[in-house]
Amino acid sequence: MNNFDFCNPTRIIFGRETVSQLNDVVPADAKVMILFGGSSAEKTGTLDEVRASLGDRAVSEFGGIEPNPTYETLMKAVELIRSKDIDYLLAVGGGSVIDGTKFVAAAVPYEGEPWDILLTGGQHIKSALPFGTVLTLPATGSEMNSGSVVTRRATNDKLPFMHPLVFPKFSILDPTKVYTLPERQVANGVADAFVHVIEQYLTFPQNAMVQDRLAEGLLQTLVGIGPKILADQKNYDLSANLMWSASVALGGMVGTGVRHDWATHMIGHELTALYNIDHARTLAIVLPSLLNVQRKDKAEKLLQFGERVWNITEGTEEARIDQTIDATRNFFESLGISTRLSGYDLGEEVIDAVVKQLEKHGMVTLGEHGNITPDVSRRILVDAL
Amino acid sequence: MNNFDFCNPTRIIFGRETVSQLNDVVPADAKVMILFGGSSAEKTGTLDEVRASLGDRAVSEFGGIEPNPTYETLMKAVELIRSKDIDYLLAVGGGSVIDGTKFVAAAVPYEGEPWDILLTGGQHIKSALPFGTVLTLPATGSEMNSGSVVTRRATNDKLPFMHPLVFPKFSILDPTKVYTLPERQVANGVADAFVHVIEQYLTFPQNAMVQDRLAEGLLQTLVGIGPKILADQKNYDLSANLMWSASVALGGMVGTGVRHDWATHMIGHELTALYNIDHARTLAIVLPSLLNVQRKDKAEKLLQFGERVWNITEGTEEARIDQTIDATRNFFESLGISTRLSGYDLGEEVIDAVVKQLEKHGMVTLGEHGNITPDVSRRILVDAL
Repeated sequence: MNNFDFCNPTRIIFGRETVSQLNDVVPADAKVMILFGGSSAEKTGTLDEVRASLGDRAVSEFGGIEPNPTYETLMKAVELIRSKDIDYLLAVGGGSVIDGTKFVAAAVPYEGEPWDILLTGGQHIKSALPFGTVLTLPATGSEMNSGSVVTRRATNDKLPFMHPLVFPKFSILDPTKVYTLPERQVANGVADAFVHVIEQYLTFPQNAMVQDRLAEGLLQTLVGIGPKILADQKNYDLSANLMWSASVALGGMVGTGVRHDWATHMIGHELTALYNIDHARTLAIVLPSLLNVQRKDKAEKLLQFGERVWNITEGTEEARIDQTIDATRNFFESLGISTRLSGYDLGEEVIDAVVKQLEKHGMVTLGEHGNITPDVSRRILVDAL
Repeated sequence: MNNFDFCNPTRIIFGRETVSQLNDVVPADAKVMILFGGSSAEKTGTLDEVRASLGDRAVSEFGGIEPNPTYETLMKAVELIRSKDIDYLLAVGGGSVIDGTKFVAAAVPYEGEPWDILLTGGQHIKSALPFGTVLTLPATGSEMNSGSVVTRRATNDKLPFMHPLVFPKFSILDPTKVYTLPERQVANGVADAFVHVIEQYLTFPQNAMVQDRLAEGLLQTLVGIGPKILADQKNYDLSANLMWSASVALGGMVGTGVRHDWATHMIGHELTALYNIDHARTLAIVLPSLLNVQRKDKAEKLLQFGERVWNITEGTEEARIDQTIDATRNFFESLGISTRLSGYDLGEEVIDAVVKQLEKHGMVTLGEHGNITPDVSRRILVDAL
């Protein structure tokens, strides 16, 4: 296990009818801006719940943060907040709204061009507006961490940043919000959380027993929930366990003290930026092929993953690794998520375009060993055709 | 899963040679008091490391906090701190020193008689001195939570309190500190962490999949480490995984959103207060007998625990429960810890004395169902003879 520095100060308020606790956790004298996405927050009644809970606080609203939130949209929020006397943000939505709110929180007091926050991975952030979240979509884990990904539409750049100042002060997780989500988003949420765990876990043996067991436990949980919740979306127990799994998946404990992969995400980001494929679906395209191409480097962990999560214990090592990769692919497919580029009407033309973008963004030594060069990324994409 | 409110703001600085980071995490202008236990902190060189890391800060020291820290000793620290201009505490030691420091941190600014903090479980705490910890003994998890247990020697009372204000600001966990511990303390640490997980997990099915899997993962880890580390105490990987397991065991994530047991601890506390048996050993005495006496209430979870942690899958339910309890008892014995009162030269005379103390402390409806009455506690103790 490597040395580590772990802290996750976000307060999680979890359960039924918890939105009403906003009144207790948002400062009474806060001048609040609610940030949200499309029309669903209004239609489902969540925005009304939020407004009611905030009582007579001064509240502004900024809607229209899109999936894969864009710099262009978020900068409009930044301008608005700077022009008003806002001192507290409240993200109401899923990972895109929360990621966007993190960027806005850091950009408002940022000296210089806020796009530099993305170009420097957040390292020059000195302050940020405080914010909380009301989560409506379990998937990204953004509600319980300090990371964010923002896309610049003008250039098709999709870049991440992290900073301790953008941990949410609190996140309200009401599992009944899952009941009214489109099935597609529930499936995406399961796949997204699954790959978040894999990116931190499926590398090489690092003598991190607790992290491995937690990772395997989350994967087993997601495998158990996956197809069931698509058939029974208003099942509180399934929704609650999905929501908590997705938060814990990226809450820091799975990945502390170990080297991570994240190549699947970096390649996936380019697919989203270029072809607007849902984030989770890009992960389901890339991951099985990445595991196949990297099967030697990842052999020991693939065997452990196969045995502990999929109960694969028979056959040669090569055969067990094949079975493990197949099981992973089949899991995504069982969620209705295609794991091939062809499933999204994409073909060989994708490969050069994605590799070029990876090179542009300096993503030339990806993976836990830094050996996923553009050439290896190319082989992964070929394998995913 | 029940609704829950989870927050653990303690920063964990984990790994080799991390004590030197004190200089970064203790405020530069702090007037610090170091609290520690017996002579081992001095002998092992840890105190010198701490002093060196604190540089030219104003530092006082208070030694002599005993295992099962007493109100009588701790109040001497409180007087001393009140008489000086101390504004930051640093606990250097194991769970007893850290528990004691939590009490001191809350007692210094407490209005009224500080023993009331214990009598009211901490509910009237309004402020506390900030403090950090340097952990030398993995066991209690106190370094990563807001709970504490203090004993009043004059009356043999051993009582707990909790409050968010007594989360450590940081805890430094250097696994090499395990290398020089007496074997007895390493064994106790494994057993203590194991029972902490069990008290939160081994109740009844509560639809908390992530909590269950994390609990089982910690138990598997501790079972894997247990006898090995006693034979190979200077193995960094084993020490590191033991240290992190013990912290996570009581860091809050295992037990959030579920009803707990804690009857083993409450009965065990009385054995320590009356007969001065090591805390962990009292747990090893009580737990197997408690599981046996409560086997009907806990049947479903005992079967799950047996299958997932001990691979017990053959035989009738009763037989599998028997095997599971035996495996648990044998695990403690494999650590050199006797699981019978007779192993501590105690006999039937214990029973009335312990039951009387439980009644005195209002511990008359223990366990996850509140059905461990004094009569049930009596049956557990008879089973443990």
